[in-house]
Amino acid sequence: MHDRSELTPIQTRAMETVQGIQDAICSALEGLEREAGSEARFVPDRWVREAGGGGESRIITGDVIEKGGVNVSAVHGELSPDFAKQLHGSGSTFFATGVSLVIHPQNPHVPTTHANFRYIEHGDRRWIGGGGDLTPYYYDADDKAHFHRVFREYCEAFPEIADYPAWRDWCDRYFFLQHRGERRGIGGIFFDYVNVDEAKEGHDLALLDFLRAGGQAFIDAYLPIARRHVSEPYTAAQRTWQELRRGRYVEFNLIYDRGTIFGLKTGGRTESILMSLPPHVQWGYCVEPEPGTPEAELLTVLREPPPPGPVAGSER
Amino acid sequence: MHDRSELTPIQTRAMETVQGIQDAICSALEGLEREAGSEARFVPDRWVREAGGGGESRIITGDVIEKGGVNVSAVHGELSPDFAKQLHGSGSTFFATGVSLVIHPQNPHVPTTHANFRYIEHGDRRWIGGGGDLTPYYYDADDKAHFHRVFREYCEAFPEIADYPAWRDWCDRYFFLQHRGERRGIGGIFFDYVNVDEAKEGHDLALLDFLRAGGQAFIDAYLPIARRHVSEPYTAAQRTWQELRRGRYVEFNLIYDRGTIFGLKTGGRTESILMSLPPHVQWGYCVEPEPGTPEAELLTVLREPPPPGPVAGSER
Repeated sequence: MHDRSELTPIQTRAMETVQGIQDAICSALEGLEREAGSEARFVPDRWVREAGGGGESRIITGDVIEKGGVNVSAVHGELSPDFAKQLHGSGSTFFATGVSLVIHPQNPHVPTTHANFRYIEHGDRRWIGGGGDLTPYYYDADDKAHFHRVFREYCEAFPEIADYPAWRDWCDRYFFLQHRGERRGIGGIFFDYVNVDEAKEGHDLALLDFLRAGGQAFIDAYLPIARRHVSEPYTAAQRTWQELRRGRYVEFNLIYDRGTIFGLKTGGRTESILMSLPPHVQWGYCVEPEPGTPEAELLTVLREPPPPGPVAGSER
Repeated sequence: MHDRSELTPIQTRAMETVQGIQDAICSALEGLEREAGSEARFVPDRWVREAGGGGESRIITGDVIEKGGVNVSAVHGELSPDFAKQLHGSGSTFFATGVSLVIHPQNPHVPTTHANFRYIEHGDRRWIGGGGDLTPYYYDADDKAHFHRVFREYCEAFPEIADYPAWRDWCDRYFFLQHRGERRGIGGIFFDYVNVDEAKEGHDLALLDFLRAGGQAFIDAYLPIARRHVSEPYTAAQRTWQELRRGRYVEFNLIYDRGTIFGLKTGGRTESILMSLPPHVQWGYCVEPEPGTPEAELLTVLREPPPPGPVAGSER
């Protein structure tokens, strides 16, 4: 990570905030492993970015989590002119610190999840972005209701900052595979460029409080769902279905995901960026589940068109 | 496919040419299965493109070929203005017919291979493109020499059209994963925009002869290599290595491959385009083979930087 002497006070606070989120989430997920009788722990891997900054990836391979990564980074430097033009703010210098995680559980009844909380400066602008979303392999209306309720209440606790209905819809529009006509999952929230037009130091600190609370919201949203399903038995066919659906996850991340593209374009660390990819994946040809099966039910849910509106802020 | 009455004579000939290549290659690959005592055959799947044209995907799941697809399509219509600007030729109408194949063998000692031969019209311009390349999981200098010799001799038989040294280098530059610093495989040939500035009907027919000979060159290049290795025993660890390397194949195709992007942008048929993705794939975190192993030897070869020069004609 950074030598703190290079950072401004707000950059330091932002970096500490995302590190705190990383600690809290890793600790909660290790608790989930412990409850399942597993000794699995996150293994830290610190890395330095030659062009400026660095990060710490934490990887877990457990009984509950087949592959999980919780990554923080704090990087700065120069954007390529083409890429700089696609962002708010002027000039080519940037600072970005964030925490990003993807959890791929072993059991197909436990959903995959992703969350991200970031603070970015580009030229004269600074803003936050982030969100959390759920990608089940089997549809469960109670899980969906719980996940959304937690994120709604989180947003409602910060009425000056957050807009839950807009961010829920943004999430549905963002995590959509155009070439498949499918949503990646059952949603959550997605936000970006929050505070991009403000420049009040006090407000910046409130934004960091908001990010910190987002990390806790993620824990409250995901862990009860994982606990509910972690002991459910599953068949080889259900596992195959999970691996085929993981193929869609790969397609989304490599074709559409801005975080992945931002990371690769800013000379990010490939292994930390592609940590999001699932461990075992399958692709078939024209695989379509039998009507009336739980697999077909999931597809019916995912094929509901997203709410209308632009994928605002998309760099592509 | 097309109702031929909609097509010009050269479009008809181009479509027949790629269909002929499809027949020849499928027949040769089914022969490979038969030699291994397998009854596996290609299963045809014809499809229609709503915006104009259609195609036939042929899929095989065999003992030698874990997943293989040989796809032809003949499509026409309107390009989006943004995309049209990135191609040679003016206007927004296009016609494209081609054959594209990817073979993912079961045995990690048998390389994956890809080939593509296409004829394209865009506004006032027409051209051909294509190539073939080899993606081994274990490096074999004899395989590489054989594969390149066949494609070199093929090019040298058409001195008016082909430029083997340039096309070999173009292949090495094209099939390169920038974010990994790795070549996808050990090369072959890659060509595009051949004849883009000519407009002589006779020359167009010579180009189609050249494509047809390319299909035969692919057969002559790949089949002896597959035969050499198909009976070699392999371990579970070698299979894991193959699945991890297949992850790189997915990364290339979804992040860099122009054929994939062209297909998805022109409203192509997703299942036929993504037929190229391997059946079983793995991603790990910072997996690096032990020095001195055959796995490390492959990486040494793939990490050799590609020859300098632009990836000319790239749409991205």
